[in-house]
Amino acid sequence: MPTQLTLIQIDNYGPWTVTPEPRREMDLQTMQSRLYADIAQFLGHRDGYVFFSRFDNMIAVTNGLDEASHRALQETIRNRYPVTISLGVGTADTPAVALDEATEQIQAAGSAQDESRTEVLAGSFLDTPADSTLNIAHFDVNDATGKYTDQLNEFDSFIQIERGYASLMEHMREAHGALSFFVGGDNVIATCPELSPGEYQAAIDHVGDDVGVELKVGVGRGVTPHEAGYAAKHALEDCRFDGTTVEFDTPHAATGDD
Amino acid sequence: MPTQLTLIQIDNYGPWTVTPEPRREMDLQTMQSRLYADIAQFLGHRDGYVFFSRFDNMIAVTNGLDEASHRALQETIRNRYPVTISLGVGTADTPAVALDEATEQIQAAGSAQDESRTEVLAGSFLDTPADSTLNIAHFDVNDATGKYTDQLNEFDSFIQIERGYASLMEHMREAHGALSFFVGGDNVIATCPELSPGEYQAAIDHVGDDVGVELKVGVGRGVTPHEAGYAAKHALEDCRFDGTTVEFDTPHAATGDD
Amino acid sequence: MPTQLTLIQIDNYGPWTVTPEPRREMDLQTMQSRLYADIAQFLGHRDGYVFFSRFDNMIAVTNGLDEASHRALQETIRNRYPVTISLGVGTADTPAVALDEATEQIQAAGSAQDESRTEVLAGSFLDTPADSTLNIAHFDVNDATGKYTDQLNEFDSFIQIERGYASLMEHMREAHGALSFFVGGDNVIATCPELSPGEYQAAIDHVGDDVGVELKVGVGRGVTPHEAGYAAKHALEDCRFDGTTVEFDTPHAATGDD
Amino acid sequence: MPTQLTLIQIDNYGPWTVTPEPRREMDLQTMQSRLYADIAQFLGHRDGYVFFSRFDNMIAVTNGLDEASHRALQETIRNRYPVTISLGVGTADTPAVALDEATEQIQAAGSAQDESRTEVLAGSFLDTPADSTLNIAHFDVNDATGKYTDQLNEFDSFIQIERGYASLMEHMREAHGALSFFVGGDNVIATCPELSPGEYQAAIDHVGDDVGVELKVGVGRGVTPHEAGYAAKHALEDCRFDGTTVEFDTPHAATGDD
Repeated sequence: MPTQLTLIQIDNYGPWTVTPEPRREMDLQTMQSRLYADIAQFLGHRDGYVFFSRFDNMIAVTNGLDEASHRALQETIRNRYPVTISLGVGTADTPAVALDEATEQIQAAGSAQDESRTEVLAGSFLDTPADSTLNIAHFDVNDATGKYTDQLNEFDSFIQIERGYASLMEHMREAHGALSFFVGGDNVIATCPELSPGEYQAAIDHVGDDVGVELKVGVGRGVTPHEAGYAAKHALEDCRFDGTTVEFDTPHAATGDD
Repeated sequence: MPTQLTLIQIDNYGPWTVTPEPRREMDLQTMQSRLYADIAQFLGHRDGYVFFSRFDNMIAVTNGLDEASHRALQETIRNRYPVTISLGVGTADTPAVALDEATEQIQAAGSAQDESRTEVLAGSFLDTPADSTLNIAHFDVNDATGKYTDQLNEFDSFIQIERGYASLMEHMREAHGALSFFVGGDNVIATCPELSPGEYQAAIDHVGDDVGVELKVGVGRGVTPHEAGYAAKHALEDCRFDGTTVEFDTPHAATGDD
Repeated sequence: MPTQLTLIQIDNYGPWTVTPEPRREMDLQTMQSRLYADIAQFLGHRDGYVFFSRFDNMIAVTNGLDEASHRALQETIRNRYPVTISLGVGTADTPAVALDEATEQIQAAGSAQDESRTEVLAGSFLDTPADSTLNIAHFDVNDATGKYTDQLNEFDSFIQIERGYASLMEHMREAHGALSFFVGGDNVIATCPELSPGEYQAAIDHVGDDVGVELKVGVGRGVTPHEAGYAAKHALEDCRFDGTTVEFDTPHAATGDD
Repeated sequence: MPTQLTLIQIDNYGPWTVTPEPRREMDLQTMQSRLYADIAQFLGHRDGYVFFSRFDNMIAVTNGLDEASHRALQETIRNRYPVTISLGVGTADTPAVALDEATEQIQAAGSAQDESRTEVLAGSFLDTPADSTLNIAHFDVNDATGKYTDQLNEFDSFIQIERGYASLMEHMREAHGALSFFVGGDNVIATCPELSPGEYQAAIDHVGDDVGVELKVGVGRGVTPHEAGYAAKHALEDCRFDGTTVEFDTPHAATGDD
């Protein structure tokens, strides 16, 4: 049940931001976040997921997207932005291993700041995406609004959320090769290998012990990132209603557990 | 030399994202990042700065923007998005103190998840913005491309950058009441009180000792966030050319030190 | 070889623009043109075409898009805009007949200004889109830059282009049931039934006689609007290189005429 | 009471759209309409107006915007789009005369398709914008929804609106040197010299006689385009409530006639 990951790297972006002299920060922020939004729409409508991570490097879960779709993404960005993007693709049961492969494809073609290296498209795609299942976990913080947002100044709320995220991302990466991304508010979404409820509970316990932030998680499975992620959202709603900390769901939730 | 900070909070956003049932994640990501981009353009063209922080709560440096500008921002968002925003404003020499005041304005009007609390606009504005000077510090990681991006898989590069950011944000907050924001790539921008070169060097040393990430910083002063931030970018360029770790600049750089 | 057309109508838009009082015109313009852009991306990545026409009512050529795709479009707009859209779909060999059917679907459900009529989705879709071929014609004005843009004031250039467009749109509608749309610059794109080169030449002659604007046209066939429209662009390039006024092309242009 | 007009021309756009080969039409449409939207936000927040007209050439009313603002617009577009823009500025009591001057500034610097002519910024700006008053007229079609949108197929509704617009734009241009722009739905906005109620009534009568389309108009005065245009919208609302065809309003409408 492999996961297909795509590394999206803006070509030679660092030098561009200061050539011929530094560009206005708010223009850079606007360009970056709109580029991310357009990629989110492009992939989202094909049931993929993309995370902004560092903005100049974004990580996408692309089960179900073939090489032609990736090429179409490069074309539409080239047609509408002052920058171009390189894409490296990898597949593996463990997301971190898939990302190793995806990253190596781009690194092998040259440095991120090599101005002659543009629009790389390399890597391996899933042969029969419909046969593979992937796992998405959606974490959030218990009562973040009541405990933080409505109580602390916003930066101190943000520090709490960041601490929880930092602890979780390192644990999931090291223990399981899972990749976790902050997606706004008090939400973290992770692309994971097959893990047991006990392993998710252990991750939540680790974060509680480590930094004192209390999490819960909904886990979904599906043949596309959207299908798995949407099941995860429903599972997280189950946690909210039932007061539980770990719930699983599937897209074929006909048994009444939704 | 006070800094004016504005807390921008999407009204009742958490409940909206799951009503009547969970909305597609890529649509939420698109909406959030475009909302941020539009606010960045609105404030940026008035020489303000805004950071996405948690996306549902954003923090802006707004020296030079009066109440009418804030009201115009609320109006244009209401006219074009499915959500509305509340704005709290505070001023103080120390950014964290200004944010305390800004946050309290919104909290006093109701919870972030109170559906009847919409479009709050409250707080105090600088009387004579042209008389006050603010400080912006622009940090980045030494040779992040060579050490991380071109070497590690992208998530592991991201972990390194996140570690550096987490360490820096907590130090600057606790030691100085400064607020630091990751802005993509290997860049962190901080709104700071008046600090000495030694204090900036100590922050960099702290991060190096704490998590092994090597930073440098350019610091700028100005009467608007853009003016200060742009001077900071030039100062950071000076670090790059001269191999130094802390440089200061001002918008009136007529003495050849730029 | 039927064409599938979709009428996209913003629900109850007129009243919304003046409730509770008139909204700023530049906000309305921004919202409208971004809504169009997002629909263009959504349909474009599925090889469809959409024209802004009146902005509150847009007309799309949607061969190859099924009901689920139309429903997904409604969902993503609802998630990101302050307005919703209704969709009516029709199919016929003659585009005007297909649009009759598409429009009737929406009209039957209520007035464009009925606030209780939202998100209509009705009509008939092509059963086997891959079996049908459609025609796209791409017109432009001969040497518009040399004759108008570089000579007249911009409004007077615009009047010339508008005159040519008005004459062409009425002729194509009345003579052939074809629907022609101005798409910027000096370009008009039409969705057409099967027409002969002589009929295209007659249309060009009519516009020349009627208002003195000289056109040329490239015509393409394909199973999707993009395929047909892209062939039309290549055919129009052939006109430019060869100095001809009517050229045809197909997506299977292996015979060297491209 | 001069009007200041700015011609915005995308540099060398025609050749770009077909180099190295034709670009996807929906990408071009997306890029154009988002470029327009961004310019509408930029100018709109400074109380200016911009009309998309041909998209590759847009016409803006810019009373109150100085040279530095125009330069800032060029910069932010360059930072975020794959194209650049040239700006020509002119001032006169009659809009068409101001546009003559604006257009000549750009034409004098080279052809619209000269690849070495980029980012022209030339022309004259109003010295004391606060002393000048401009006129904006906002026309719409009487009961367009009842007569057209809810009755005809959408293209035939569009033809009626286009006929009314074509007739009005030519009359206003020839009789008064006013510039009229279709802005979506059944709305036309015109930048006008000082005209009497009788002259507006004559324009409406002309269109009714010429093409059978019945219009009404609200006219506003103000020191900025937004101020004048917003007064025009209120005046048009007065027409709706009172069943009249020509109404005037001013931003200082304290006498209860609003």
